[in-house]
Amino acid sequence: MTYCVGLGLKDGLVFLSDTRTNAGVDNISIFSKMHVYHIADERIFVLLTAGNLGIAQAVVNMLHEGIETEERIETLYTVGTPFRAAQLVGEAVRRVFQTDGEAMQAQSVAFDVSVLLGGEIRGRGMRLFQIYSAGNFIEATPDTPFLQIGEHKYGKPILDRVVQYDTALTDGVKLVLVSMDSTLRSNLTVGMPIDLLVYKRGALEPELKRRITEDDAYFRVIRERWSDALREAYHAIPPPPYTSD
Amino acid sequence: MTYCVGLGLKDGLVFLSDTRTNAGVDNISIFSKMHVYHIADERIFVLLTAGNLGIAQAVVNMLHEGIETEERIETLYTVGTPFRAAQLVGEAVRRVFQTDGEAMQAQSVAFDVSVLLGGEIRGRGMRLFQIYSAGNFIEATPDTPFLQIGEHKYGKPILDRVVQYDTALTDGVKLVLVSMDSTLRSNLTVGMPIDLLVYKRGALEPELKRRITEDDAYFRVIRERWSDALREAYHAIPPPPYTSD
Repeated sequence: MTYCVGLGLKDGLVFLSDTRTNAGVDNISIFSKMHVYHIADERIFVLLTAGNLGIAQAVVNMLHEGIETEERIETLYTVGTPFRAAQLVGEAVRRVFQTDGEAMQAQSVAFDVSVLLGGEIRGRGMRLFQIYSAGNFIEATPDTPFLQIGEHKYGKPILDRVVQYDTALTDGVKLVLVSMDSTLRSNLTVGMPIDLLVYKRGALEPELKRRITEDDAYFRVIRERWSDALREAYHAIPPPPYTSD
Repeated sequence: MTYCVGLGLKDGLVFLSDTRTNAGVDNISIFSKMHVYHIADERIFVLLTAGNLGIAQAVVNMLHEGIETEERIETLYTVGTPFRAAQLVGEAVRRVFQTDGEAMQAQSVAFDVSVLLGGEIRGRGMRLFQIYSAGNFIEATPDTPFLQIGEHKYGKPILDRVVQYDTALTDGVKLVLVSMDSTLRSNLTVGMPIDLLVYKRGALEPELKRRITEDDAYFRVIRERWSDALREAYHAIPPPPYTSD
């Protein structure tokens, strides 16, 4: 399992992904699920993947090699707009389905992959998309400025209540870390370390890219303070006034 | 969808269930998922159901009519122990599978039902069980004193962090209400009103049984205070000290 979250905020983008992959509970590995495509001063794309690791890697490899369309080969380094980038990822997913889908179906393995893609191309805007396993996609908007893939439910309540389009990037970092912490606690198949990337709108380079390990002092602060805060919050709620009917 | 939660605490049991059932998003109804079996001064059982409503009602009806076993008819009013009560519920689930399972399978409808059963019989102890759709079951223990069925993920982080075996019953009520609120916010197919029952160990009658509606003043306090507390908690966490590598 996997948990990846992306925020599409007024000031920029925040991405966080775990690194655990598992084939059963006794075959656990660390794979980065975050891929960055960057040409200084021109473009940056960040791609996060969830689902079947074989499919996800096939999609990423296909995007690296480039996809032949109408007599040219396109990659995330050559597409003209963020929208075209999302289409290209969708096309990669569909081509992997064409090559691997039938054999997987024959063995009752679900064709399960989802992708978060966010970034900016100079003069063409900053956007954040979620691509489904059918290759279609949706986009984050000011009304719902976050997208999640993988094991998303445990970490959703805090995002539902707090994230807004004008949330500051530093607050966004706190929130995705809290959201990840809730997920890590409730689902063993989501695991440390985690990869964080912060992108400031217009910068065309990462503001921050960091692998956060178990030893990370700030992540420990988040975990402890958050647990304490939840306990304090529920203690502060007055006792129920209910009496029996 | 449904969300039901049960706490098995040192001092007693707390049950909370929503009332929404849906067949698609345009066919939504209110059904109580909480059933109480009570003989004053002798026994009390509380049963909560999730999953396919037809199966759940068939199980409940079968338990009302009684299950013929070895030349007697057993109900939750006649079983000798809480353990036997859980077995009886499991037996009811299996019998419904025998009668309905094949026809449902033929129409690709999953045989999906799960049950929380908690209660006490005088001199035979207080217990809390979760019965699966195969009729087998598990029990809450002091290490993990809560059980959830239905849409359980959104409401699990708060329980994971705070509920302990020696949590007071009034705190347990707050916690299941917070857990339900998180679920209601994140999943539209879980809906108000909600049914709350509190049982104090040894009482052999409900301490409190109450239907909580949208107008309930205390539940509104819970919702508002909890949202405020989460926002304050994340504001109080210091900003990330990370700088780019």
